[in-house]
Amino acid sequence: MNPAMNRVVIIGAGFAGLFAARTFLGTKTRVTLIDRNNYHTFNPLLYQVGAAEVEPSEIAYPVRSVLRAGKNISFLMAEVTGVNSSKNMVTTDRGDLHYDYLVIATGSRPDYYGIRGAEDNTLDLNTLNDAIKLRNHILCSFEKASQCDDAGELEKLLTFVIIGGGPTGVEYAGAFAELVHGPLHRDFPALDLSRVKIFLIDAAPGLLAGYSRKSALYTGKKLERMGVTVRLGSPVKRIDNEAVVLSDGEIVRAATILWAAGVRGEALKTDLSPPAGPRCRVGVTATLQLAEQGNIFICGDMAYFEQEGGALPMMAPVATQQGAHAAKNILRIMKGQSPVDFRFRGRGAMVTIGRNSAVARIGSFEIKGFAAWILWLAIHIFFLIGFRNKIFVLIKWFGDYIFFERSGRMIIPSCDDGMKLFSVHEKVKRH
Amino acid sequence: MNPAMNRVVIIGAGFAGLFAARTFLGTKTRVTLIDRNNYHTFNPLLYQVGAAEVEPSEIAYPVRSVLRAGKNISFLMAEVTGVNSSKNMVTTDRGDLHYDYLVIATGSRPDYYGIRGAEDNTLDLNTLNDAIKLRNHILCSFEKASQCDDAGELEKLLTFVIIGGGPTGVEYAGAFAELVHGPLHRDFPALDLSRVKIFLIDAAPGLLAGYSRKSALYTGKKLERMGVTVRLGSPVKRIDNEAVVLSDGEIVRAATILWAAGVRGEALKTDLSPPAGPRCRVGVTATLQLAEQGNIFICGDMAYFEQEGGALPMMAPVATQQGAHAAKNILRIMKGQSPVDFRFRGRGAMVTIGRNSAVARIGSFEIKGFAAWILWLAIHIFFLIGFRNKIFVLIKWFGDYIFFERSGRMIIPSCDDGMKLFSVHEKVKRH
Repeated sequence: MNPAMNRVVIIGAGFAGLFAARTFLGTKTRVTLIDRNNYHTFNPLLYQVGAAEVEPSEIAYPVRSVLRAGKNISFLMAEVTGVNSSKNMVTTDRGDLHYDYLVIATGSRPDYYGIRGAEDNTLDLNTLNDAIKLRNHILCSFEKASQCDDAGELEKLLTFVIIGGGPTGVEYAGAFAELVHGPLHRDFPALDLSRVKIFLIDAAPGLLAGYSRKSALYTGKKLERMGVTVRLGSPVKRIDNEAVVLSDGEIVRAATILWAAGVRGEALKTDLSPPAGPRCRVGVTATLQLAEQGNIFICGDMAYFEQEGGALPMMAPVATQQGAHAAKNILRIMKGQSPVDFRFRGRGAMVTIGRNSAVARIGSFEIKGFAAWILWLAIHIFFLIGFRNKIFVLIKWFGDYIFFERSGRMIIPSCDDGMKLFSVHEKVKRH
Repeated sequence: MNPAMNRVVIIGAGFAGLFAARTFLGTKTRVTLIDRNNYHTFNPLLYQVGAAEVEPSEIAYPVRSVLRAGKNISFLMAEVTGVNSSKNMVTTDRGDLHYDYLVIATGSRPDYYGIRGAEDNTLDLNTLNDAIKLRNHILCSFEKASQCDDAGELEKLLTFVIIGGGPTGVEYAGAFAELVHGPLHRDFPALDLSRVKIFLIDAAPGLLAGYSRKSALYTGKKLERMGVTVRLGSPVKRIDNEAVVLSDGEIVRAATILWAAGVRGEALKTDLSPPAGPRCRVGVTATLQLAEQGNIFICGDMAYFEQEGGALPMMAPVATQQGAHAAKNILRIMKGQSPVDFRFRGRGAMVTIGRNSAVARIGSFEIKGFAAWILWLAIHIFFLIGFRNKIFVLIKWFGDYIFFERSGRMIIPSCDDGMKLFSVHEKVKRH
């Protein structure tokens, strides 16, 4: 079959979708990449936007720029409304597309595990807009606190609860503690910041599941020294408006509650009934295909893939490798070759706690402290997509390191409804 | 009277309000600066945000950081709802404040001169949020155009009308033409950008009123060469949804209509009946006071002040000098001295047209071209408040100059309603 006759559609411009698209650069296959936003988000640094450490634009990059070299790849900014696999069609709010091969890389969204009130009463760090909302919310809490005469209200405004002791929760807790005791301390001289309470709550008995007990203990101690109260073995029973109810009956009142306890696959309306994995992920074959539908590939957070007896985690390195692999398999099939099995090559994982401290795992080896932090810095700069962004983030981090400063402290609106993205007159739903 | 007993309230953290507040740094006077945003906006570069040339954060700076050195100055993020001069009170949505001296520096908003449909059917460049909206709108117009099959609709999507041939209109027209023919040309290879039409429309017979005929002609020629159609002597009769109706009956259909035809003083609810100047500005004495109410000072765009037979223009240099002068006069009065007359010392004015070209006026002397552009660059960098912002904007401009690139092309929401600035639960009105 002539590869130029085939049309590939990729849903999602996250790590998996973007790396799938990039793999088609320079080939003759016509590819359409669809995303609801016109930018790719470097998700591993969303927590820094939420802590006013970097600007949204520094971790976002226009998709069209990334794909500029490829005349065979087009981009469609649209909301995917469904997949009709019997007709090989993707439906969107901007029209329908026929595909010969489909890559579903829709990513993930917060998993609330059915905990009552969790979705309605918490903020999260899943998208760039979520991170901007969180940043605006914490900065506004301090603005409100600076004018507050009521002791109970003040306590609530200055209490910040982070639910989830995984990488996101740990990284945000550390970055937020540094924001409070550095720039906000100087911005609000009249406010007694010793009243700020930061809770990091997890149901598990230890932080950072997957790391060694030694690294987890180091992380907890480091956070406590930075002013974070770490509460382990404390399952959340329910979340009310501005209050977290723990299963032992304790109630923590807080104007800011961040949900960082986990994610699940992003649902997509289809006529498929693929094997459902845990956390709404979709079971795939060893070649990343749907067993019943060989022209549909799933990759990234959406794909449930077991390797060496365990499911691969929902994180960027898995997504990039799966995206590229799915694209290579499509190219193989077009040439009449059989698709090859996917195998994740882990290069390690790391979590930064704060200034000069992190924990890193390379194979079965773990390091912590300053060396791990330098490693974290180097690797994240290297992987930030786009040369200019790398340089800017580097300069800003260097500046922050020298001056103990944060530059992103402007409360610039983000919003859910009432957005007027497409026209002065039309109203569009949330993107 | 003991200066430490006096309370000064300043409304607005624009150029006038901020420079008034800075003048009180190091004195013993207690000052409260109020603004609806927690940042100061460097308005002269708003057009660059609207043209995706710089990021919002690069021309905004947290007010608390600017005032950090001053323990006598506090900041209140609030919406001022009125002034009750008989009780010496300012009312806000965050509580009321007593003042002994009041500085009103509320700035300006677009003046639509009563033209029907202008307010409802145009975008503008008055606030940071307006600039973000404009940026999102033009980028979305290109995204829509890239998927558009209808010839009439495509023409409308690719027609951009800028109303007003003053500095804002000229600068935006030039920056937008460069955005289209540089980065967007590369981002949308499948789109025929020769179909893009940019109109710059003014009722007056020439561009840049106040500059020499020679500079105005140079500017018009330069813009035409950049792909802008300049229509002079063309008053706008009315503006419909996506259509500008000129007084000669011609209708220009355009999905993007920018209003840059002028501004007027921002209204404030008061019990005062001060002398009304043209364009809703408030007439002040030679010392910037209200004639009937000596403890109230007006400065910046709100103040109507004549010098050498003409009204001072509504621009940043006038605002900074008036703000500082009003503060000095308040300090004089507190010490029992009489206030002194204000006199604006103009250092010149300049308008940039695009890459390598600008016009500048220093006294009665005018220069144009590359030299004027270099001068414009140097002066704007110098006046950008905050060291870090200066460095960042400089690096970015340098990068853009080398690579013909724009980095701010992410469509990140801005919004009017539905904003959730203050809490996950509360709904606040537009700030």
